[in-house]
Amino acid sequence: MIKAAVMGYGTIGSGVAEVLEQNRDVICRRAGHEIELKYVLDLREFPDSPVADKIIHDFKIIEEDEEVRIVVETMGGLNPAYPFVKASLLAGKHVVTSNKALVAAHGTELLEIARRQGVNFLFEASVGGGIPIIRPLYRCLEGERIEEITGILNGTTNYILTKMDKEGESFENALREAQNLGYAERNPEADVEGYDTCRKIAILTAMAVGKEVNFEDIYTEGITKITDIDFKYAEKMGTSIKLFGTSRIKKDKVSAYVAPVMIGKDHPLYAVNDVFNGILVKGNMLGPAMFYGSGAGKLPTASAVVADMIEAAQNLDSHVPMGWSDEKQKVEPMEDICFRFFVRIAGSYRNKEADVKNFFGNVDVYELYGLDEFAVLTREMAEGDFRRAAAGFDTKEQARSDFGIKQMIRAVL
Amino acid sequence: MIKAAVMGYGTIGSGVAEVLEQNRDVICRRAGHEIELKYVLDLREFPDSPVADKIIHDFKIIEEDEEVRIVVETMGGLNPAYPFVKASLLAGKHVVTSNKALVAAHGTELLEIARRQGVNFLFEASVGGGIPIIRPLYRCLEGERIEEITGILNGTTNYILTKMDKEGESFENALREAQNLGYAERNPEADVEGYDTCRKIAILTAMAVGKEVNFEDIYTEGITKITDIDFKYAEKMGTSIKLFGTSRIKKDKVSAYVAPVMIGKDHPLYAVNDVFNGILVKGNMLGPAMFYGSGAGKLPTASAVVADMIEAAQNLDSHVPMGWSDEKQKVEPMEDICFRFFVRIAGSYRNKEADVKNFFGNVDVYELYGLDEFAVLTREMAEGDFRRAAAGFDTKEQARSDFGIKQMIRAVL
Repeated sequence: MIKAAVMGYGTIGSGVAEVLEQNRDVICRRAGHEIELKYVLDLREFPDSPVADKIIHDFKIIEEDEEVRIVVETMGGLNPAYPFVKASLLAGKHVVTSNKALVAAHGTELLEIARRQGVNFLFEASVGGGIPIIRPLYRCLEGERIEEITGILNGTTNYILTKMDKEGESFENALREAQNLGYAERNPEADVEGYDTCRKIAILTAMAVGKEVNFEDIYTEGITKITDIDFKYAEKMGTSIKLFGTSRIKKDKVSAYVAPVMIGKDHPLYAVNDVFNGILVKGNMLGPAMFYGSGAGKLPTASAVVADMIEAAQNLDSHVPMGWSDEKQKVEPMEDICFRFFVRIAGSYRNKEADVKNFFGNVDVYELYGLDEFAVLTREMAEGDFRRAAAGFDTKEQARSDFGIKQMIRAVL
Repeated sequence: MIKAAVMGYGTIGSGVAEVLEQNRDVICRRAGHEIELKYVLDLREFPDSPVADKIIHDFKIIEEDEEVRIVVETMGGLNPAYPFVKASLLAGKHVVTSNKALVAAHGTELLEIARRQGVNFLFEASVGGGIPIIRPLYRCLEGERIEEITGILNGTTNYILTKMDKEGESFENALREAQNLGYAERNPEADVEGYDTCRKIAILTAMAVGKEVNFEDIYTEGITKITDIDFKYAEKMGTSIKLFGTSRIKKDKVSAYVAPVMIGKDHPLYAVNDVFNGILVKGNMLGPAMFYGSGAGKLPTASAVVADMIEAAQNLDSHVPMGWSDEKQKVEPMEDICFRFFVRIAGSYRNKEADVKNFFGNVDVYELYGLDEFAVLTREMAEGDFRRAAAGFDTKEQARSDFGIKQMIRAVL
């Protein structure tokens, strides 16, 4: 019998209690031990919940109880998650967390403490919810040199973009609907500005290269500027727009970004819709592989937490090598990454053809009926080159009344 | 330094040598040891290959060399693969195989020997080529009660069906093309009759329930009867036809089958095309998750073999619990499984409406211009009930000149 404590009885924490209860027999068989929840740490009381008698308010009780071997952190945020997790590891306990903010900000240090203490710090649930993606990177694709990871890693933004794509909704309406359904928070900034995706792609990249990746080094752009008109063009072009977190690894060079990207129907992530997540991993031997499933939600995420608890239970007295070292991985500047660029320009192509060709070279042109604008899709070029071309074009056009570039979306087509 | 031997220097065996060589540094880091190929067992010589000096023709050399800790079997077939693998395990060596025929036929016994000997018998590459699917079942989805596994598990048939779907080819032409490209063998029976898929779904089902599943108990139907006309209807209906290996697990009951199935655009496996494989796993907590990638091919499959070699290297002195016991899992009869049925019937619906409704109940009707036939899609019913209805309908119709049912394809819509 192994005793565990859960810190934070919110959505995921209560899901963990539920999974442990409902799948008790399977878990026991696979873990080799029964896993019993001894404490649930929360500021609140939950008198009507199945864990009512396990609720405690003082972390010290967990820290000092030697019987507790596995601590689950599902509080979110950095404070007090960070000091509690660190203290738990230092007390020789295994820690399982679903908290990507914690892993992205302090993973290097926490992994190092776990290594020194001979315990495990596991975080499958911090990326991709219930989809196994962290563990495949250290358990399944071990013979591979990972060359690319591209993920639709945020269910909220994917739901919003799917609504805009399939139902022609505006960003504002789609966001409101996501909020009404509980998919988006009242303050949706972390999701819609791409911050959540950024932390997740930083974690996946660090797993792939075995070095620390500072999420603040990753260029991050959200979806707030994407409009229903962009999707009208996308429909005409047979494409869609998805929020990607991507990193490409070539020798020791890592390029990474978070941005809305226009993709075609043949892209493996094209069919990842609604709140689902999908993660494409390219290995040098394997080629592309894709992992798809529920990227969020109470029970799927809790299931990933429980899988980590089972791994900890199977390795109670040993540290499973995984994660990354404190060596720092440089992230190449966004300017050097190559894309095609989808650009919407005011006015009519007929009047601007010469300037367009002059600044952007050979392009595909798209026009929608009834709009005083047109769109072009450039050949592949480095982001820096595109920015210079776009600035040059805008300057040249400044004198006109139908002036300027209205939108730019990177395209992988 | 760990010494390994490869038995069978065909496509996959030579791929294993190549992956070990090309990714030497990554593999060494993750395995914690360098893995060196000491012997390559084959009847042939390969004087110009990089393993020329490692070729041996006598299995005894491997069996008796205590330095060899990991034996890789990539010969295929049962003889001599089975006696060689068994002898290797009995000699206390870890065995890694890509051979689904071997695992489906003798897995139970070989797993039991490995357990007794304290070594590992690993077979990630036997299902899904390079896609991690065996290991996720025992490493990642451990907290889950698996309720369904549905896979497109055979690249050859998926290539043929994709050609028929997208390019309107006949089965015969698509098969010939697959043969010309080396995707299908001269004798394509094992692929097109579904035997390969049957062994793979038997292995996955046994992994999920932890008991032996006899692949001969699984109803198996191939794709040889699928025609270009079926795909014309499918196009009109917005569906596609895929060869599924499926098992559903409810309490202790397992239903499993291999058959071509008509599915809609919203099915997670709809977009799995060409030689790619996709495997949908439904857990009681996770909901649906999907694994997608190269289901065959030299390097992807070899990469899965190497991942198993790394797992063996990490557990040189311990047996990793996985696989299934010798307890036998009953497979429910096909008659009890429920589907909708797509049925093509000679003649015109106008003349047969009464009989159709009488035998099949409420149906959707589809007609293609210029064909003296029509198709119906039934409501969901048990296969046994459908067969009785179809037999009754055919008997009733016998007197007519435009007699009978021309095609039946199960539908999951």
